[in-house]
Amino acid sequence: MIISIYALKSDMIRVVQQSLLGSILSNMLLVLGCAFFTGGIVHYKKVQVFNKAAAVVNSGLLLMAVMGILFPAVLHFTHSEVHLGKSVLSLSRFSSCIMLVAYASYLFFQLRSQQNFYSPVDEEVDTCENSDEEEELELTKWEAIIWLGILTVWVSVLSGYLVDAIEGASESLNMSVAFISVILLPIVGNAAEHASAIMFAVKDKLDITIGVAIGSSTQISMFVIPFCVVVGWCMGKDMDLNFQLFETATLFITVLVVAFMMQGRQTILKA
Amino acid sequence: MIISIYALKSDMIRVVQQSLLGSILSNMLLVLGCAFFTGGIVHYKKVQVFNKAAAVVNSGLLLMAVMGILFPAVLHFTHSEVHLGKSVLSLSRFSSCIMLVAYASYLFFQLRSQQNFYSPVDEEVDTCENSDEEEELELTKWEAIIWLGILTVWVSVLSGYLVDAIEGASESLNMSVAFISVILLPIVGNAAEHASAIMFAVKDKLDITIGVAIGSSTQISMFVIPFCVVVGWCMGKDMDLNFQLFETATLFITVLVVAFMMQGRQTILKA
Amino acid sequence: MIISIYALKSDMIRVVQQSLLGSILSNMLLVLGCAFFTGGIVHYKKVQVFNKAAAVVNSGLLLMAVMGILFPAVLHFTHSEVHLGKSVLSLSRFSSCIMLVAYASYLFFQLRSQQNFYSPVDEEVDTCENSDEEEELELTKWEAIIWLGILTVWVSVLSGYLVDAIEGASESLNMSVAFISVILLPIVGNAAEHASAIMFAVKDKLDITIGVAIGSSTQISMFVIPFCVVVGWCMGKDMDLNFQLFETATLFITVLVVAFMMQGRQTILKA
Repeated sequence: MIISIYALKSDMIRVVQQSLLGSILSNMLLVLGCAFFTGGIVHYKKVQVFNKAAAVVNSGLLLMAVMGILFPAVLHFTHSEVHLGKSVLSLSRFSSCIMLVAYASYLFFQLRSQQNFYSPVDEEVDTCENSDEEEELELTKWEAIIWLGILTVWVSVLSGYLVDAIEGASESLNMSVAFISVILLPIVGNAAEHASAIMFAVKDKLDITIGVAIGSSTQISMFVIPFCVVVGWCMGKDMDLNFQLFETATLFITVLVVAFMMQGRQTILKA
Repeated sequence: MIISIYALKSDMIRVVQQSLLGSILSNMLLVLGCAFFTGGIVHYKKVQVFNKAAAVVNSGLLLMAVMGILFPAVLHFTHSEVHLGKSVLSLSRFSSCIMLVAYASYLFFQLRSQQNFYSPVDEEVDTCENSDEEEELELTKWEAIIWLGILTVWVSVLSGYLVDAIEGASESLNMSVAFISVILLPIVGNAAEHASAIMFAVKDKLDITIGVAIGSSTQISMFVIPFCVVVGWCMGKDMDLNFQLFETATLFITVLVVAFMMQGRQTILKA
Repeated sequence: MIISIYALKSDMIRVVQQSLLGSILSNMLLVLGCAFFTGGIVHYKKVQVFNKAAAVVNSGLLLMAVMGILFPAVLHFTHSEVHLGKSVLSLSRFSSCIMLVAYASYLFFQLRSQQNFYSPVDEEVDTCENSDEEEELELTKWEAIIWLGILTVWVSVLSGYLVDAIEGASESLNMSVAFISVILLPIVGNAAEHASAIMFAVKDKLDITIGVAIGSSTQISMFVIPFCVVVGWCMGKDMDLNFQLFETATLFITVLVVAFMMQGRQTILKA
């Protein structure tokens, strides 16, 4: 998230959009796919089970977020003949606000309702800290806050360098900026999550795997993306939700298939 | 429905399409969203439950109807270079007949099968009367029929005036006709349903809320829209199912997300 | 499948694509629709039940296969201005390999896991033999293999004639080649499956009906289509996964609606 804001500051709007999109796709397809596949191979004699509830809530939210992202792209596509850069931008900002309200409501209801139907995989802290907390290092509240602070500062220093380095890297490695932002950056950035997701799948704790992979996609699409749009609005940058048509279609289909699979898998396991 | 036929008579095909579409969208997003949100706030300590069966049958039918509406729009879009206004119109009329047959089958099986797995929310009477009957005023059969007759006549008189007024209103209020037909007309027209849906959600009777909101969307898309196409056919008007691409895409995504949510919510509640 | 390879040899790539697509559509819509409708009419007093597991696994796989087919079509559509025939072809071949690996994994896990949560509807033998085996003729292993061999040779002889006949038929019957390959060929080719699917629905064995209709669609989309692409690759033919936009959209919506219905129906029955 911090890196996105840095890139936004440097007017690299496409890079922000592509790295966020790539992050969702790598979580949904690469991380989840590898985890399920590895888990399936290691435990090939039995069927792995997971708590359907968390998976369905998360994938439902994700689908809603994708809906918010689709509208600007479709509007841009179908009415591109009219000069409506303005409309797409306004729609994006409006959608972003709605998405932030929806995400806040989700957190509120999740914390308030005492039912605890899903294991409390942390979703309100930033992605960077996920891997720390999941290993159950028995941090006290204050230690956690301090570590959070230190890591945040550290990440923001690194982000500054990274953003400056992208264009240079693109030239020297002879790769397009798009490839770096959609593929390389998210894979490297999610390496910790990737490793822990596979590890938990191997340990037959699919709930945590799904919590990490889908939970962090939900968080990016419902919180980080709209937040970037709003921050860009304050900064006067034209960050909108209009990821081009191909990228949006890819995202939509991916989320749909994964969401459907989440529902399907469980059914098999119960039957 | 009556108003649609009046507008059709006056050659305002776009207005008919847009007001029907707007009606579905306002039911699915505004009414259902408000009802769930209000219900969630009032009953924030517990989880509201509902009978998944009615919700899933209705949203499944709705998805099928949307499929019927999508094909003409996609055909129009992908083959627009050929002069095939005729093809889209024929496809629309064919689809409409299929949809009417499917709706009739649905009513037939619903009434015949003695299982009664869903609470008998009335779906075969027109939308206008929903609010009356739901308040359980203990009408006898004949009183109901008489009221139905009186209201129908009254609504058709008003509809005539309303259709004449749209263009004038558009000019004097300085709004586009599209805004009036997609947004204003459906919201005003569904005010009674909107109010009762929220009321039932507050009273923790989500079944009725969903019955009102999704049931009436299903009815519009499976019955009113194809009926208008067939009536237009008889009248010699070129009413087709080709709501433009953006509107159709919006409808598709909305129905998909709501249908998915209907399945997801229940799962959470049971787990 | 054999006929597809013959057509591929004769450079009729569009015919191959369209007949495979038409085969999936006729299975999903015509066969399944007729079977459910007939079953519903015959058993109108009760609700027909089926094992949700097999239906959901199959429709999930089908959705995944459709995802693989969608990407090349969307890429072709959104980036058609660039001269990227090459890219679409490479993407298709890459997707096909992934799909074959996924299908192999599916078979492996299905055979390995001893849970047997779905009735073993045969999916690894070719479609042509389905109807034989389902009637439980008590074949021994060797008889089965011999029959398989004889039928394969017979079918490949006929396929050669059929492919040569298509163009002539198109002229003499005054139908477009597209109509013959999308509609006529699959309906005639699936006649045996169609009949047996309806028969089993009438006998209230919906599991087998669904196994035949969806199972064979899954098999075509996950195995036959990618296999044809790979075979075309070896032959040096430019067979890709880019079924035009309209066809792909139709396929996507169909699979989505049927997959959703599969989930919905069961819920009703249980409730």
